[in-house]
Amino acid sequence: MTRGLFITLEGGEGSGKSTQAKRLQAALEVRGQTVTVTREPGGSPGAEAIRSLLVTGAADRWDGMTEALLLFAARRDHVERTIKPALDAGSIVICDRFTDSTMAYQGYGHDLGREPVEQLSAIVLGDFRPDLTLILDIPVEEGLKRAVSRGGDELRYEDMDVAFHHRLRDGFLDIAKRDPERCRVIDSVGTEEEVAARLQAVILPVIESFHG
Amino acid sequence: MTRGLFITLEGGEGSGKSTQAKRLQAALEVRGQTVTVTREPGGSPGAEAIRSLLVTGAADRWDGMTEALLLFAARRDHVERTIKPALDAGSIVICDRFTDSTMAYQGYGHDLGREPVEQLSAIVLGDFRPDLTLILDIPVEEGLKRAVSRGGDELRYEDMDVAFHHRLRDGFLDIAKRDPERCRVIDSVGTEEEVAARLQAVILPVIESFHG
Repeated sequence: MTRGLFITLEGGEGSGKSTQAKRLQAALEVRGQTVTVTREPGGSPGAEAIRSLLVTGAADRWDGMTEALLLFAARRDHVERTIKPALDAGSIVICDRFTDSTMAYQGYGHDLGREPVEQLSAIVLGDFRPDLTLILDIPVEEGLKRAVSRGGDELRYEDMDVAFHHRLRDGFLDIAKRDPERCRVIDSVGTEEEVAARLQAVILPVIESFHG
Repeated sequence: MTRGLFITLEGGEGSGKSTQAKRLQAALEVRGQTVTVTREPGGSPGAEAIRSLLVTGAADRWDGMTEALLLFAARRDHVERTIKPALDAGSIVICDRFTDSTMAYQGYGHDLGREPVEQLSAIVLGDFRPDLTLILDIPVEEGLKRAVSRGGDELRYEDMDVAFHHRLRDGFLDIAKRDPERCRVIDSVGTEEEVAARLQAVILPVIESFHG
């Protein structure tokens, strides 16, 4: 059996990742693909328990380094117990957030810098990385408006100041620029249908060439 | 004000660390020292929350790497929010377990190896390390007998097989051999009073020369 394809969706608050992950799943399943949709932090029982420490409490509950360690602990569990088994079974895995989010939020947003995040990734994941990463890009104010109207209990990051969200967006764009083979930036302004069409225009040819 | 001294107590299950930490505190306070006793995993509100993920659940709940990451996340919080502030205020800090326990349990006991633990320590703590480490050494069977008779809910490690506890003991002794400047091995067989006397015989001269 061919190993599946590992696709990650990245972007700031309100960029539409979760919605687009579901739409992408439907579009791929219609084409006969087996698809696993998952998200970080979380995606395995252990990682979900770690998630609860990350998404609740005051915005300054953890420093950037502690947060990065908790995120990589959750990621390790998620990769070993959910993602790799699904890929080995031939499934396409679509993951809402992965290491690039740690780089953007803790590395760029919290000023931890790129180096500790790169080092942690090397120690924890070795050379395991996404085959394709789609970065959903949206102006900060518009993304925050979407996120706030969505509501919910997990608002730690929406509460950070606007300057943080600008560092975050710039961080994601810098990540894409440094790794153009793996990353594509997708304009996330517009209706869900419009953005879904942009994503599929990038992904479908990759999947065809992968299975071809 | 002089920065305080950072002393760690290390050893396997039933080696008597917690009891000896309290006795040592009393002996130092009688001599006019300000002493903070703390323990890992835990020792700060965030680290205690992480601890609850580590000390409950099945023995194979986490792989060695995930466990090491959770331990370093808790340690980072503990160092930044409890240990460094206490040292800066001039207190002697006595800590029941620190990085050597992660090296012994995850590095040697779970076969993660020395390298990832050393790398994590460098990323997370830089060159922050104990001024003095006392390794309480006891034969495996005797230590487990003590630990089981003590009881309690946090028995994940006591449940591991005996071979694990032998790797653990050998690991601690190897750690001591590699860093003889920082580490002293203390024979933990005997009564509480006998072991306490052995610890004080090592620590009191260090504290006198530190303040002298």
